[in-house]
Amino acid sequence: MPSEADGGITLIPIRGMGEVRPGDDLVDLLMAALSSQGIELADGDVVVVTQKVVSKAEGRLVAIDTDDPAAKAALVESESVRILRRRGELVITETRHGFICANAGVDLSNVASGQAALLPLDSDRSARGIVDGLRGRIGVEVGVIVSDTFGRTWRRGVTDVAIGCAGVAAVVDLRGTKDAGGRELQATEVCVADELASAAELVMGKDRDVPAAVVRGVPGSWLRRASVADEIVRPPAEDLFR
Amino acid sequence: MPSEADGGITLIPIRGMGEVRPGDDLVDLLMAALSSQGIELADGDVVVVTQKVVSKAEGRLVAIDTDDPAAKAALVESESVRILRRRGELVITETRHGFICANAGVDLSNVASGQAALLPLDSDRSARGIVDGLRGRIGVEVGVIVSDTFGRTWRRGVTDVAIGCAGVAAVVDLRGTKDAGGRELQATEVCVADELASAAELVMGKDRDVPAAVVRGVPGSWLRRASVADEIVRPPAEDLFR
Repeated sequence: MPSEADGGITLIPIRGMGEVRPGDDLVDLLMAALSSQGIELADGDVVVVTQKVVSKAEGRLVAIDTDDPAAKAALVESESVRILRRRGELVITETRHGFICANAGVDLSNVASGQAALLPLDSDRSARGIVDGLRGRIGVEVGVIVSDTFGRTWRRGVTDVAIGCAGVAAVVDLRGTKDAGGRELQATEVCVADELASAAELVMGKDRDVPAAVVRGVPGSWLRRASVADEIVRPPAEDLFR
Repeated sequence: MPSEADGGITLIPIRGMGEVRPGDDLVDLLMAALSSQGIELADGDVVVVTQKVVSKAEGRLVAIDTDDPAAKAALVESESVRILRRRGELVITETRHGFICANAGVDLSNVASGQAALLPLDSDRSARGIVDGLRGRIGVEVGVIVSDTFGRTWRRGVTDVAIGCAGVAAVVDLRGTKDAGGRELQATEVCVADELASAAELVMGKDRDVPAAVVRGVPGSWLRRASVADEIVRPPAEDLFR
């Protein structure tokens, strides 16, 4: 079987992090879970961590009467800088980070009853904290992506995307390189961070207790300083549909 | 190291399919490339094949003067049922399939000079042909996804998505299942076909000659009859941004 040495990539679920609580150290929890599974992180691995556990560890939880639609609507508005569309209970909003998503990323699933999880204040910084923590604790140089689950404008079904990253590229610019026929490629800025988040989701699922994954075998050239805010969030001036 | 047996997934690039020409049998080419790499397909594998080689094999190529912007614009219009937005050379269109994408999916990279590749007429059917071909030839039951590279409304960078599938789910409906806290999940229809396409792209790259990949370790419950047209394409009535 081909392996990472042949250009392959392995997606490894990280299980057993348990219930994450405000103030918990995610690096500790990740290390314990990895150790209990016998996974040793290596330089160049990318660790994808879902927003849910990052928000919980950072205490981004608010009390809410989940049976009160008005309370939910008020919370969504308070987390939004702009409402783009409404249909029934669905509200498409722009968050302070510039993300366009349903309900400003406010999430009621996989949190305790009577609570909602909000997006991290700065999920690039959250990712950097995990990169720095893993380097400091076990001396590995990994990339980290904080992922969340967003809908898409024209396509049914949700997919996971990157809302924060550190140590791994958000967008890789292949413009100016040649295709296999020697012609210069155009408009080929690939959002590898979103692809990595989607790939990791394949081993996470929504109904299993897998809040993180390791992606092993990522090209070394993608491992660099990076930021979702700077590279992926599309400024309104570039945007054809706002 | 954990493997597929522990819920992991492996992404394996398929190299060495060479230049694909109209009338070529993609199943033959895939089998030869897999064999030369020592990869044996197994039941439950998902094979992701890029639109470019599917279009070439199906003869979806047209002659065009690539230096003539008017000729390109006319070709894009002829492949569209609706123009959603224009900015400079960028045209966001709806194709006959219902895909919203740039330039109606007409592609000038990785094709011979003076030619453009059009989308397959029915990429779900293209995927079914490969599923049936591999079953008939070597008796394996695999899923197949035909992938293409699309931009997104609110996020910079392109990602690969599924434009056709067979033998593997497009959207997996997790609504009604319970989250780890026992609360019923809402709105969790995951577009696993797009996530599989994005994952496969990670081992393909745009500047290397890797037009296909094997995804090994996909949950068995995802392997079923499916269709991008039926499951992913959002009907205009559901759409908030058209």
